[in-house]
Amino acid sequence: MSVVLSRRDVDFLLFEWLDAAGLTERERYAEHSRDTFDAVLDLAETIATRQFAPINRLLDTQEPVVGEDGKVVLPAELSEALRVYAESGMPAATFDAEVGGMQLPFAVGQGAFAFLQAASAAAASYPFLSTGNASLLVEHGSPEQVERYALPVIEGRWYGTMALSEPQAGSSLGDITTRAVRQPDGTYRLFGTKMWISGGDHELSENIVHLVLAKVEGAPAGVKGISLFIVPKFLVEPDGSLGERNDVALVGLNHKMGWRGTTNTLLNFGEGLATPGGAAGAVGDIVGEEGHGLAQMFHMMNEARISVGMGAVALGYTGYLHSLEYAKQRTQGRVAGAKDPSLPQVPLTEHADVRRMLLAQKSYVEGGLGLLLYCARLVDEQVSGADEAARTRAHDLLEVLTPIAKSWPSQWCLAANDLAIQVHGGSGYTRDYAVEQFYRDNRLNPIHEGTHGIQSLDLLGRKVVAGGGAGLATLVGAIKDTTGRAVAGDATLAAYAAQLDERVDRLAEVTGTLWAGGDPAVALANSAVYLEAAGHVVMAWIWLEQLLAVGDRRDAFFDGKRAAARYFFAFELPKVGPQFDLLASLDRTVLDVDPAVL
Amino acid sequence: MSVVLSRRDVDFLLFEWLDAAGLTERERYAEHSRDTFDAVLDLAETIATRQFAPINRLLDTQEPVVGEDGKVVLPAELSEALRVYAESGMPAATFDAEVGGMQLPFAVGQGAFAFLQAASAAAASYPFLSTGNASLLVEHGSPEQVERYALPVIEGRWYGTMALSEPQAGSSLGDITTRAVRQPDGTYRLFGTKMWISGGDHELSENIVHLVLAKVEGAPAGVKGISLFIVPKFLVEPDGSLGERNDVALVGLNHKMGWRGTTNTLLNFGEGLATPGGAAGAVGDIVGEEGHGLAQMFHMMNEARISVGMGAVALGYTGYLHSLEYAKQRTQGRVAGAKDPSLPQVPLTEHADVRRMLLAQKSYVEGGLGLLLYCARLVDEQVSGADEAARTRAHDLLEVLTPIAKSWPSQWCLAANDLAIQVHGGSGYTRDYAVEQFYRDNRLNPIHEGTHGIQSLDLLGRKVVAGGGAGLATLVGAIKDTTGRAVAGDATLAAYAAQLDERVDRLAEVTGTLWAGGDPAVALANSAVYLEAAGHVVMAWIWLEQLLAVGDRRDAFFDGKRAAARYFFAFELPKVGPQFDLLASLDRTVLDVDPAVL
Repeated sequence: MSVVLSRRDVDFLLFEWLDAAGLTERERYAEHSRDTFDAVLDLAETIATRQFAPINRLLDTQEPVVGEDGKVVLPAELSEALRVYAESGMPAATFDAEVGGMQLPFAVGQGAFAFLQAASAAAASYPFLSTGNASLLVEHGSPEQVERYALPVIEGRWYGTMALSEPQAGSSLGDITTRAVRQPDGTYRLFGTKMWISGGDHELSENIVHLVLAKVEGAPAGVKGISLFIVPKFLVEPDGSLGERNDVALVGLNHKMGWRGTTNTLLNFGEGLATPGGAAGAVGDIVGEEGHGLAQMFHMMNEARISVGMGAVALGYTGYLHSLEYAKQRTQGRVAGAKDPSLPQVPLTEHADVRRMLLAQKSYVEGGLGLLLYCARLVDEQVSGADEAARTRAHDLLEVLTPIAKSWPSQWCLAANDLAIQVHGGSGYTRDYAVEQFYRDNRLNPIHEGTHGIQSLDLLGRKVVAGGGAGLATLVGAIKDTTGRAVAGDATLAAYAAQLDERVDRLAEVTGTLWAGGDPAVALANSAVYLEAAGHVVMAWIWLEQLLAVGDRRDAFFDGKRAAARYFFAFELPKVGPQFDLLASLDRTVLDVDPAVL
Repeated sequence: MSVVLSRRDVDFLLFEWLDAAGLTERERYAEHSRDTFDAVLDLAETIATRQFAPINRLLDTQEPVVGEDGKVVLPAELSEALRVYAESGMPAATFDAEVGGMQLPFAVGQGAFAFLQAASAAAASYPFLSTGNASLLVEHGSPEQVERYALPVIEGRWYGTMALSEPQAGSSLGDITTRAVRQPDGTYRLFGTKMWISGGDHELSENIVHLVLAKVEGAPAGVKGISLFIVPKFLVEPDGSLGERNDVALVGLNHKMGWRGTTNTLLNFGEGLATPGGAAGAVGDIVGEEGHGLAQMFHMMNEARISVGMGAVALGYTGYLHSLEYAKQRTQGRVAGAKDPSLPQVPLTEHADVRRMLLAQKSYVEGGLGLLLYCARLVDEQVSGADEAARTRAHDLLEVLTPIAKSWPSQWCLAANDLAIQVHGGSGYTRDYAVEQFYRDNRLNPIHEGTHGIQSLDLLGRKVVAGGGAGLATLVGAIKDTTGRAVAGDATLAAYAAQLDERVDRLAEVTGTLWAGGDPAVALANSAVYLEAAGHVVMAWIWLEQLLAVGDRRDAFFDGKRAAARYFFAFELPKVGPQFDLLASLDRTVLDVDPAVL
């Protein structure tokens, strides 16, 4: 079996559970068939295995550096891997046909891209960010902007970035200070410094399209004053040819614990190339209207958060497969009750605690993959659902699931990576084995694209209360629909359904309790605990859904699903009990503490 | 405040809780006073702050390499830091006066050494391993062996190692294959390969004393056949001068995720220097009698496990202090309910979720420090208790606490390091801040000196059932003694005592349930869950003890103790509920799963 990602599992989830093949009956995907989906998955798996996985360690050890000419130096092997990826047509996978895309379902695109993310988080980050960038322009840009800036990215010729954070404004985007000055010709000139810009500079492509948040002079304070600008590294002529170097300067590269193959930059806009007498500043082209920047960015960010969650799943999944392979091959000791030292040593998989660590990983990563593909499938439903009601339901469900889809794998598939190291023992702690890199790489995911804390405020402060609680009601309804089908199953399924029913009722009840007082400070004080409890309830639901898709089929794969679900219901779901108790008590520990005593 | 470790907290725990000063009334420590204790703590803090902390990142980035001459190259700054440490006399801190030691209480020695471990885990590892090495020889070696091999280590002139693991035998020491061949002169010749030997080769000192587990030819299979040998890098003449190079060859250096400043080696014994006609093999001097090796090593290992736990605490603690300092200085956003963007940004400590992350860390690291110093104090009680009963009680309690003292901080103070990164946001993920290294360094602790799984088998399979359950009974009695005193306190203390009483009763009950069937496979199937639940119960006890020591005193420090304890009782202790439920159900998930379905 490949240790990158389980194709069997992706196929099961997409085709035996989520009926991705059924999408081809819809007009939007009518050009496709199960065969074309398979072909894309085959392609992704092949590129991941042959081009990405073999260079993953290299990208970790040969970090980008700035050469004497000021250009970023990356390993040639990365250029080659990305060239193969670009030439495969994969960058266009989920884009509409009218912009040159394959118009694949997002679920299939995500399933395919997960192979790349599992093989090399760093290598995959370049197309990952670029897809988000072009997707935003396709949604919000003018036709000219799409043609000039998005098409080259969709074609895989250019890369794109998202330039949001600044040194003083990370989670608090309302506090950005990058200025945009209107010019008589309708363009803008930008001045400011952007931090943590992944893919912010490199020589992998002839141009880089930065999407930059800035405030037009005189704009209101806070998020309402934010606008979005296209700021290419090289100016682009109307015919698509490249013009002058724009005033975007690489100030420095960040050096991270993991994810080292991704250039992560500090960029100055409008300070490096100011010419006497000329119009100083970085030339920017506004997207849509002034003041709409954050809303536009959020449209992209929702899909980006799903992709980040998938990235966390992918790293957890590949770590699980690596540790499973190791545990099957490595012998050590003997099992409880059969300690005769004259007997040969047994494989690690014979030890109960190693099985626990493998089952835990399996429950996290297969559950996570299920959740992320389910969310991706909702994206497809949003755009291709049979009627308004179906599309609205998909939208509402996706809204409430997105913070969980981003944060749950970032926590638990990182925990899986921790267990993958532990299964390896001392070897897992060395750089001779892959799992330590997965752990370091995955540690980024609870931070970027909105930290764990930000996701928790999004879920409890916005998503579950949106539309008078419609978001939560939709989720509860969806879960109840599943448990309703499961109680009709065998005794095991019925027992799981009963457990889940109780927990989802508690989730709804506790949500009401938290907001009953109407004081956001009190309601949100323990939002991270709420996020984690809600996440485990959702994951139990995803596992129950998977078991329903398994039905009464039996083989190693299906029995593995049963075992992982059993683990999740026995070891994991009960953890929410004390969490809900804490939340229901409106615990004030963190509110009351005086920071001076810390 | 220093960001290395809190001296105030160490002083509180040692002198206001554990009455370390009172030890000076005992004969063994009569030469000491609070002043000499303070002087040693001052010295450790100074060396940690001035010599160790400043080179911690350097040791991470300049890993040991093997030079062309085959010698290990380490940064000169490490030699200098260790020279200062050695010349301070600290290596002799806890050794008996008759072997040139200061004869300090172990608790004071551990409290002092924790500053070094917090400042640089890698630098501290050289004296750490050497202390264990010499300690073992002082306990089990002949007077000649002590003089020849232990004194130079106690004097800080040489270093020592523990050579247990082999490529095919990590956790399963009974399966080592290193052979020892008896010689007519009473010495042995060793042949074999040892893996994961920290400090196994370097030029920091003129000699290295390896303590090596091996099997004499004809010895029984398994652990009963293991003997312990002194194998110096250079042979030592009777007058203490150095003779020939022994046949111990450096085969390779391991490259780890963290802890990079510690040479970690693969060593060959008796294969490199075999001379034609001469007696091939590495010259070894047996410690005590044949077949006693593992028992001798375990004597050392118990103290080593406490020191590993302390190392995990130290890394967690320093990470907490770093993140606290960052959170107080860094401003970002505004708090729930006061989002006006025209207001200035607030310090991170104003955000509820950041406070949660700081309180969690505080509860883990101050609780962990308390547990480790409590255990160290038990070591002192074992050797200096007023009567046999007191010494026996200390011994029994220490036996049952040791696996927890090793594993709990390895899990939760690593979790603290994870939170320290999260508090820093994106910055915490870069190598510009110290916290990412703490996280990488601390990840070793759940692996070495007995993995998490090994500790759990030790606790549930041996310690709690030893002496017909005497170990557990002693622990339960100690906790009940504390809760008995706490119920007489204020309402908060009484409530905590009631919570803890309920949990410790449950611990005893569940232990009985697990063993009621008498089947070790069933009893031990979920030993890791048992270890974690027992650990949290013990930690709640340690927190209650600390609050009793605080009494009704009030200032920022004491109120901080109250806040951290409140966090632990509200957010952490309730986690044991579902764990005990799982254990009580004799859950068979991990036993039943067929590895073929994973």
